[in-house]
Amino acid sequence: KIDGSRLWESIMEMAMIGPGVAGGNNRQTVTDEDGQGRALFQRWCEAAGCSMGLDRMGTMFARREGTDPDALPVYVGSHLDTQPTGGKYDGVLGVLGGLEIIRTLNDLNIRTKHPIVVTNWTNEEGTRFAPAMLASGVFAGVHELDWAYARADAEGKTFGDELARIGWKGDEPVGARKMHAFFELHIEQGPILEAEGRDIGVVTHGQGLWWLQVTLIGKDAHTGSTPMEMRVNAGLGMARITELVHEIAMQSQPDAVGAIGQANVYPNSRNVIPGKAVFTIDFRSPDLEKLDGMKARLEAEAPKIAADLGLGIEIEPVGHFDPVTFDEGCVAAVRDAAERLGYSHRNIVSGAGHDACWINRVAPTAMVMCPCVDGLSHNEAEEISPEWAEKGANVLFHAVVETARI
Amino acid sequence: KIDGSRLWESIMEMAMIGPGVAGGNNRQTVTDEDGQGRALFQRWCEAAGCSMGLDRMGTMFARREGTDPDALPVYVGSHLDTQPTGGKYDGVLGVLGGLEIIRTLNDLNIRTKHPIVVTNWTNEEGTRFAPAMLASGVFAGVHELDWAYARADAEGKTFGDELARIGWKGDEPVGARKMHAFFELHIEQGPILEAEGRDIGVVTHGQGLWWLQVTLIGKDAHTGSTPMEMRVNAGLGMARITELVHEIAMQSQPDAVGAIGQANVYPNSRNVIPGKAVFTIDFRSPDLEKLDGMKARLEAEAPKIAADLGLGIEIEPVGHFDPVTFDEGCVAAVRDAAERLGYSHRNIVSGAGHDACWINRVAPTAMVMCPCVDGLSHNEAEEISPEWAEKGANVLFHAVVETARI
Ligand SMILES: NC(=O)NCCC(=O)O
Ligand SMILES: NC(=O)NCCC(=O)O
Repeated sequence: KIDGSRLWESIMEMAMIGPGVAGGNNRQTVTDEDGQGRALFQRWCEAAGCSMGLDRMGTMFARREGTDPDALPVYVGSHLDTQPTGGKYDGVLGVLGGLEIIRTLNDLNIRTKHPIVVTNWTNEEGTRFAPAMLASGVFAGVHELDWAYARADAEGKTFGDELARIGWKGDEPVGARKMHAFFELHIEQGPILEAEGRDIGVVTHGQGLWWLQVTLIGKDAHTGSTPMEMRVNAGLGMARITELVHEIAMQSQPDAVGAIGQANVYPNSRNVIPGKAVFTIDFRSPDLEKLDGMKARLEAEAPKIAADLGLGIEIEPVGHFDPVTFDEGCVAAVRDAAERLGYSHRNIVSGAGHDACWINRVAPTAMVMCPCVDGLSHNEAEEISPEWAEKGANVLFHAVVETARI
Repeated sequence: KIDGSRLWESIMEMAMIGPGVAGGNNRQTVTDEDGQGRALFQRWCEAAGCSMGLDRMGTMFARREGTDPDALPVYVGSHLDTQPTGGKYDGVLGVLGGLEIIRTLNDLNIRTKHPIVVTNWTNEEGTRFAPAMLASGVFAGVHELDWAYARADAEGKTFGDELARIGWKGDEPVGARKMHAFFELHIEQGPILEAEGRDIGVVTHGQGLWWLQVTLIGKDAHTGSTPMEMRVNAGLGMARITELVHEIAMQSQPDAVGAIGQANVYPNSRNVIPGKAVFTIDFRSPDLEKLDGMKARLEAEAPKIAADLGLGIEIEPVGHFDPVTFDEGCVAAVRDAAERLGYSHRNIVSGAGHDACWINRVAPTAMVMCPCVDGLSHNEAEEISPEWAEKGANVLFHAVVETARI
């Protein structure tokens, strides 16, 4: 078994970097704080005897050698970047859970046949630079490297420039590594495990996702002296499409969600009718047909709303993945580990996207989930118990070591 | 008659300070650019032989002496601050139109009985620091000086600190001056005069206004893994209240308007259900009962929308004025001037608020309006013709000189 208190202490130490405003974290991807978190992780890995690889997307690979020089490594990890108002565990638990496996193997003096590599994937969150899971997407061949470098944040800074600026742009070609398997431990970010009192979620599937960015063009005008019938109000259009997104999601129940996360009007002045609105839509479902249907309905009906108000509209897809089915063998390794350890468990579908969803395309992959309080995530108040973290990391340990062979 | 090309050249020279991104201006109140605009105006006034007064709110008073030492001055002016994406004429025409009166009187070697004072009122626009018409409001005794100083912008900077920082906080007590009369020339900012082909609007009334700032509190949560029924979505609440504001305005037709100008959600992240929304409502009508009814309906129905979604709500009034009836004698002076000059004119109600609306409480006041293209204002594309500007300034000249007596 792993050392639960050492794992917990490391999580708490990482959380001191990029503190949020309400007890959580703001350690967004390729910021100075991200750089500081990476440096801490590197020190820990080197202290545990690992060598560190760094690819052109800035993804970190901490390697513990195996006994068989021909055996492909078993990979394990997640991400250290956070939301602007994020929690202490989303991503971090999976990276430091991987490190805890190495530390435990060192303590127990166990050599595995396959090397074990702990990864910190760059820009999983996707808030500053869409899409999410950017580095693992390039790794899996879903995106081109140059396309990823050109992603721009709200200030127009590009991902590639910012990665170089913080000093974490490596030389290793992205996706060159071959994997024996990949495992990711993550908090559920939903309410099911806690509500049912289960220790472990055995993740069999992941929801698919469509991210759309909508731009409405109206006409800036004076809120006082412009008659109602002369207005071309982009803010009103945004409101109606917000309601449409909600309606589409509600009519797609069960097993579907939809919401608007970013919402901006311009010039954002008290006495100016907004002449422009830019906002982002997030649709998800584990059912591919339903997912594509939600997007199709939005694309059919939003332009009618815009036309009704005299608004120009542009709908741009900025992120997508199909629903995922994880590898049977890896999923069984997770389930068997939970059984062996005597933990209560159930099969679960991941509501969020994860690096594992992309890596599943290029290597046998599975995920372990542990509960989180009130299902709350992407919130500084995100919370888990040390026991949940420890049980999750123990299942990860057993599944990885079983796969890497002693 | 005034010199139309000199007036036009001065307007174009002022527009070089704080250029916008699309041909208009961004010379927001008490910014460095506002300071530069003030310095230019001061140079022009001094060159025209005026002395310059500056009060504690930063309002500028350029004085040309009269022949009677006991006669109260006739005041004339408007504001030099602009919207973040504002036009070249909103406010500027009224200040430089006042300066053009002085220049013309100098050219013609005419002395008036009453002194003439040209004013540049600070923070008329109210976008950076609500409410609008802040300095004229303090002058008229509607607001306290310390309350005005404490108004904060979106970054938390206060009006008082920023006024001191740009070096335009004067020593003169605010509102100490007594006025014989006040006249303001302004572009219509609406479509009526142009549509009817009239040169001049004789402003008899001004709309009343309620500005409300609404804060909705929900719960940040993951857009993917949070089931629809567990969401407390402040962005959805904002959308529904946006629709309510529109409905209230439409059902109050004719002679009423309503819209949301500023709209912000937090944390404004693609994959976070907004846990907070802050937005501003602008309701106006020339009918006091209707205006108060719009506000009352919003205050009754918005909390129901919030409660339905499980949201907390706070509605804060941040700006208000009652509908205004301008002084009969001053209005007649404007109408007589238009008649005498042979310009087509009509009575009009101002859709926007103006410094004249507050000054009307402490001195006989009237306004002159000239048309603007497509009724467009609070937009960088705001446009007027040199002929419209010249005719408006001629009416202002005649009304002011008639009132100040030769
Ligand atoms: N796990 C997680 O929050 N990933 C970010 C991508 C997503 O929104 O699902
Ligand atoms: N004239 C003008 O745009 N004033 C600003 C205050 C208002 O919104 O009416």
